[in-house]
Amino acid sequence: MSQKIAVAIIGYGNVGRGVQTALKQNPDMELMGIFSRSPERVKQDVQDVPVYSVDDLQALQKCSVAILCGGSKNDLPVQGPHFAAHISTVDSYDNHSCIPEYFNKMNPIARDNKTVSVISTGWDPGTFSLERVLGNAFLPGTKTYGFYGVSEKGGLSMGHSDALRTIEGVADARQYTHAIPEAIERVRRGENPDLKPEEMHWRECYVVLEDGADAEKIEKEITTMPAYFAPYKTEVHFISAEELKENHAGFPHGGMVIGSGSLGGTNRGTIEYHNTWDSNPAATANILVAHARAAHRLREEEKFGAYTIVDIPPAYFSPKSHDELLAEFL
Amino acid sequence: MSQKIAVAIIGYGNVGRGVQTALKQNPDMELMGIFSRSPERVKQDVQDVPVYSVDDLQALQKCSVAILCGGSKNDLPVQGPHFAAHISTVDSYDNHSCIPEYFNKMNPIARDNKTVSVISTGWDPGTFSLERVLGNAFLPGTKTYGFYGVSEKGGLSMGHSDALRTIEGVADARQYTHAIPEAIERVRRGENPDLKPEEMHWRECYVVLEDGADAEKIEKEITTMPAYFAPYKTEVHFISAEELKENHAGFPHGGMVIGSGSLGGTNRGTIEYHNTWDSNPAATANILVAHARAAHRLREEEKFGAYTIVDIPPAYFSPKSHDELLAEFL
Repeated sequence: MSQKIAVAIIGYGNVGRGVQTALKQNPDMELMGIFSRSPERVKQDVQDVPVYSVDDLQALQKCSVAILCGGSKNDLPVQGPHFAAHISTVDSYDNHSCIPEYFNKMNPIARDNKTVSVISTGWDPGTFSLERVLGNAFLPGTKTYGFYGVSEKGGLSMGHSDALRTIEGVADARQYTHAIPEAIERVRRGENPDLKPEEMHWRECYVVLEDGADAEKIEKEITTMPAYFAPYKTEVHFISAEELKENHAGFPHGGMVIGSGSLGGTNRGTIEYHNTWDSNPAATANILVAHARAAHRLREEEKFGAYTIVDIPPAYFSPKSHDELLAEFL
Repeated sequence: MSQKIAVAIIGYGNVGRGVQTALKQNPDMELMGIFSRSPERVKQDVQDVPVYSVDDLQALQKCSVAILCGGSKNDLPVQGPHFAAHISTVDSYDNHSCIPEYFNKMNPIARDNKTVSVISTGWDPGTFSLERVLGNAFLPGTKTYGFYGVSEKGGLSMGHSDALRTIEGVADARQYTHAIPEAIERVRRGENPDLKPEEMHWRECYVVLEDGADAEKIEKEITTMPAYFAPYKTEVHFISAEELKENHAGFPHGGMVIGSGSLGGTNRGTIEYHNTWDSNPAATANILVAHARAAHRLREEEKFGAYTIVDIPPAYFSPKSHDELLAEFL
């Protein structure tokens, strides 16, 4: 067996922990170390893997690829360019409107330093981006739509849960995003409708109140919160801390990309791609790990620079050889 | 605007006609000519495009890419290697078990002659192959399943319709393949079951009898036909020639790829990809056209050789620039 791909995890939050677990499912890869801003804290949780400070470039450079598991708001815009100068990287930078700028920053750094940086991957951006590009190319010019929380429980939104917790009197909260089935049906029928965000999704909130908090006032504060809730149909359920712990401890999420367009003449076609995840960060982690394999291979082939999921031949994500892929999957 | 990609169609059956129609949806591409073994016959149907003999290599070499629209059984195994020596090609060779051999035949020819040959694309093999590889890479080691005829009408199988028409006393016939919903549910639940072909699909036949034919005898002959029908649940409906013409003139098809596997620990994930096509050959044609764009670009970049859908960066299928893809689709 050829040598394993040596992987570093940078940042040990939900995604970092997910990568640690995902790597155990990939026998061609090996976790060399976890790099954290708080290595002493991480060491309390992690016994079987070396833990280093993020500043320990010497330890880092024993690895082939670093998976950057920090947040898109504050961590990745700084960590991406910093680490790309030292090692091949993979990240899930998900600020959609800033991806072109981020790509153009990472690309010359990776090229000049002979590394490979795969940016903005996971499921959205990531597999959903890929399906949007394919849908638009195979059904020429077709508009594709993304729906989230298609399954019964909906998709847990961390950002919206955080927003609920900023409200005075809220002890804890979770927010599930739900797709609106009628909107999906309109797209499926080929109407290519113009849909406002609030016509595609609605929001369901589970809120634990602090003692003595005014439920009615808080419900109004939630449903009128601009951007987060105000334009959407929003349901608020007040529950106990026990119920929250019992029924809302996980991070389920998922969604779909759908496009319906012309095949030429009167013939139409529809393409749908669905993801359903028990855990959003675990899903992101598994996709990041497959991209780390691709980054390693691209660097071995001296194809330095920045990449997104649509710039990489899909065979590079698989541990299987080209012969195996042709025989087993084509 | 940059120069259009000059495309040749070789073979003018259902797929060839579909490519002709699909090209009109792709303003960056131009149909330069149709090449046929029976050019005089094709000229009777086609006025606005030059029609040549397949032997007219001089006319062919004015094109950038040839889309080979012949059959997998007799045409492509001969035409692929022949034309790859002269021009970049795209084909839908769909004899799954022979794809590795076909790839290994085409690859050195394309390399030596500085062309690009994209083989075995369409929707299966093609987009389904891609989704099988991605599903297995992102949910490590997960088995993926293909189901066909998931929509209410089912998927029209040309091969099985032809088989029905070989039976004495059958004037005309259509066969629709249907997925078995319970099998899909088992995969969706993550059972990763071992499914026999007849546990995944059943077959519905619409048969027009010749005058005086024995319906009972023919039904028995159908349901006991080895490989095609014998192992499957098969329903036979006898209908009039008028009803066949009225309700069964098209080529609807479609299907899905589904995989359900571990995200590590106790978390699971499911990936589903669905295609629904009013016309099977028109769908194949649109996908071939997008691959012709990729073949042209790969040749421009002097990346000669044979490719499958999993060997090509998905951005190459799109007429949009990399900047546009990042801004609009990531």
